[in-house]
Amino acid sequence: MGGRILVADEVATNRIVLKVKLSSAYYDVQLAETAAAARKAMRRGGLDMVIADARLGGTHGLTLCRTIKADPSTMHIPVLLLTADDDPELRLKALAAGADDILDKPPEESLLLARVRNLLRARETEQELHLRDGTHAALGFAEANQPIMDPALIAFVVADPAEGMRLRRSVSTLCEDEVMILSRDETLGRKDDSPQPDVFVIPAGLMSKDDGLELMTELRSRGATRHCPVILTEAQVESSIAARAFDLGASDLLRPGADPRELVQRIKTQVRRKRLADALRADVRDGLRAAVTDPLTGLYNRRYALPHLSRVREAALRNGRDFAVMLIDLDHFKSVNDRFGHPAGDSVLVEVASRLRDNLRAKDLIARIGGEEFLVVLPDTDRGQAEKAAARLCGVVNAAPVRVEGLGEEIGVSVSIGVSIASPGLSGGSPTIARLMAEADDALYGSKSQGRNQYTLSPQAA
Amino acid sequence: MGGRILVADEVATNRIVLKVKLSSAYYDVQLAETAAAARKAMRRGGLDMVIADARLGGTHGLTLCRTIKADPSTMHIPVLLLTADDDPELRLKALAAGADDILDKPPEESLLLARVRNLLRARETEQELHLRDGTHAALGFAEANQPIMDPALIAFVVADPAEGMRLRRSVSTLCEDEVMILSRDETLGRKDDSPQPDVFVIPAGLMSKDDGLELMTELRSRGATRHCPVILTEAQVESSIAARAFDLGASDLLRPGADPRELVQRIKTQVRRKRLADALRADVRDGLRAAVTDPLTGLYNRRYALPHLSRVREAALRNGRDFAVMLIDLDHFKSVNDRFGHPAGDSVLVEVASRLRDNLRAKDLIARIGGEEFLVVLPDTDRGQAEKAAARLCGVVNAAPVRVEGLGEEIGVSVSIGVSIASPGLSGGSPTIARLMAEADDALYGSKSQGRNQYTLSPQAA
Repeated sequence: MGGRILVADEVATNRIVLKVKLSSAYYDVQLAETAAAARKAMRRGGLDMVIADARLGGTHGLTLCRTIKADPSTMHIPVLLLTADDDPELRLKALAAGADDILDKPPEESLLLARVRNLLRARETEQELHLRDGTHAALGFAEANQPIMDPALIAFVVADPAEGMRLRRSVSTLCEDEVMILSRDETLGRKDDSPQPDVFVIPAGLMSKDDGLELMTELRSRGATRHCPVILTEAQVESSIAARAFDLGASDLLRPGADPRELVQRIKTQVRRKRLADALRADVRDGLRAAVTDPLTGLYNRRYALPHLSRVREAALRNGRDFAVMLIDLDHFKSVNDRFGHPAGDSVLVEVASRLRDNLRAKDLIARIGGEEFLVVLPDTDRGQAEKAAARLCGVVNAAPVRVEGLGEEIGVSVSIGVSIASPGLSGGSPTIARLMAEADDALYGSKSQGRNQYTLSPQAA
Repeated sequence: MGGRILVADEVATNRIVLKVKLSSAYYDVQLAETAAAARKAMRRGGLDMVIADARLGGTHGLTLCRTIKADPSTMHIPVLLLTADDDPELRLKALAAGADDILDKPPEESLLLARVRNLLRARETEQELHLRDGTHAALGFAEANQPIMDPALIAFVVADPAEGMRLRRSVSTLCEDEVMILSRDETLGRKDDSPQPDVFVIPAGLMSKDDGLELMTELRSRGATRHCPVILTEAQVESSIAARAFDLGASDLLRPGADPRELVQRIKTQVRRKRLADALRADVRDGLRAAVTDPLTGLYNRRYALPHLSRVREAALRNGRDFAVMLIDLDHFKSVNDRFGHPAGDSVLVEVASRLRDNLRAKDLIARIGGEEFLVVLPDTDRGQAEKAAARLCGVVNAAPVRVEGLGEEIGVSVSIGVSIASPGLSGGSPTIARLMAEADDALYGSKSQGRNQYTLSPQAA
């Protein structure tokens, strides 16, 4: 089934016509004949979209839209307003009220369905970023209502630089945003690392018929610009171009001769959406990073380390090179905590973690896998190299005591290390991860029982 | 700039023509005239796509493709093969070698560019799932090489049921997958919770001109099917329909009269991709869930709890209803660890967490925010209700000792609770989160110093 769409219109015929059109694409259509009935349907919930007459009961279409867009629990529901008046002020008011679009009444069927698909697809993408089940909201990161302060960078793509200047002038009196003028070739030839626009504005027929749509699909296929909204201008909304543009992923469409204020309003809406979506994407990355990171030391955690070790082992089985595993335990850590308190203990952990990390190669892994226990994985490392690395790590940790902010005395630190080596090149030389960890643990125990502050290599595999 | 594309063809003219076509869309084109030169370019890295003559140096085009698709570090690079022969066996071999498509030579420009865009867009989406910077690989979840065992569910959409039967017969002799036959209306009217196909196969002109494309865009706009690949059949690849289909997001295209084995091969490829992408998406969800969860008790962690508390406070400021905050500390936990060992201590934590959780409402939050410390947030809860809840929680924890597997004796447990209440309805009644936490902490301290196993309410705000 398609989504559930509420249609609000005072005139029964209008409601019925819309219902028939939408039902043909298997949307689940609900009808309301007053703004009050529409609000009631909203409260029942479960709606994916609202299509309302802008003048429902006078001006209640706009009020309804404002209400929906002001409530965090409904603001993501697309609102499509319809109007029979050719009134630029009403169009502006509708967009300012947060309407996702305002279409002429009655809307042409293929355009209506394409716009509905387009808005629902955008909503699905957005919901996916929210992770549907609320995990994202649960993370408590970017919230929908952040004010957007920074000026945006708007790119107008034009065939003629003079047209660009005219556009820039008409827009700059209306907003604080920065405007750049690009040709088609400049748009496509732009370096990926140059600042990307927050929104592209492209004429549907940039230089020839429909080539604005092609430029848009190019931008959509590129990593640097695929999430940039594209507003197509000069598009006859009555024509099949408009429906195609929406199906190809246009974020919005502006008819020929539209008021510049309307363009600016539509730009604002797209920029706000893009920034929110960017923030949500960044949150997903941060959240995932947090899932594999130890918050105290910033090292990877156990969850990360063990699969990583498996991958290192698999690579070694392919390339036949040795690799080494170290278990490192901070000596006498409990007594540090007991004598100086937990905050001092934490400082010691952070400092030791940093000394260890700074003395490993970029391709080595270090993770904190327990309270005072670290795991180090060294790919492409044979017995001799592993021994040198272990000696170095013992040395740098023990070289100087740790100074703790606000504590009178310095705390002497040392680590004990157990090392195991896998030699997949030798026959019988591809021990399991469990075996390698157990060997390293036995070796660590050896270091501890021999007096700490030293490393032990597990005996060579038979 | 567009992506970097390697063009491999023995004939200089062919290389130049392709380079001109691709450069017009600002792709960065590299040329190779032998399979050896192509392999060398692959090793240098940084390629986004390979376009090669299938018969490069005899059959080396296929070998090159196989090599690229066998190496985990390059398997995600799309490979487009070209052939001047009308040889169904070669087409099959190309697809079996992992080619993303095989096009006639020379390819028509708009079709070529649309297919390139389409494949690069799919690659971008896939890379985004991999999170580009390697975080995803870092998580160590789903790996690319998982064998895919389960039979797929293939949906053939047809205008005529007899045609569906014919298709089913021709396909079922070639694969083990399950085939379902749907009409357009059945496809659109399907319940979201019925099993979704792994792939849709739709004729470009299902019942009338191009309406297969429209059906595809409908499926793309719906949450339940937006990630299902769609293979369009009966599409004249020479016509503009093919280019449009790719720009609208078709996963693949099959020309009229194609060998059923070709269809089955293309279906296999799409199913494999979809399953990998689904696994990656699930990993993102799991990873994020892990970021906000305490692994021992399964409760939310501090990272989750504090933003959640802020949201509860904001909602309370809007609706004017009281809410309560509890800090709960497990009594004498250190001595449990000392006497019975850490594993027993962990069991006690898990059991107490479960008793607390089972005695809260669904809308309440409980999180483990420290070793033996829990935070409970109770929305829409006044002083009297909070007191009752605290008394109940003290009671259920203390009601029975904890039985620990493998331990001779049972461990008696109790908690101390500190409660603070926010009354945003009262003047001056919207304390900050920090203030509420501090009040609850003071109250908790009161419970501890009064002998534990009890709750204390913070004094009513002035």
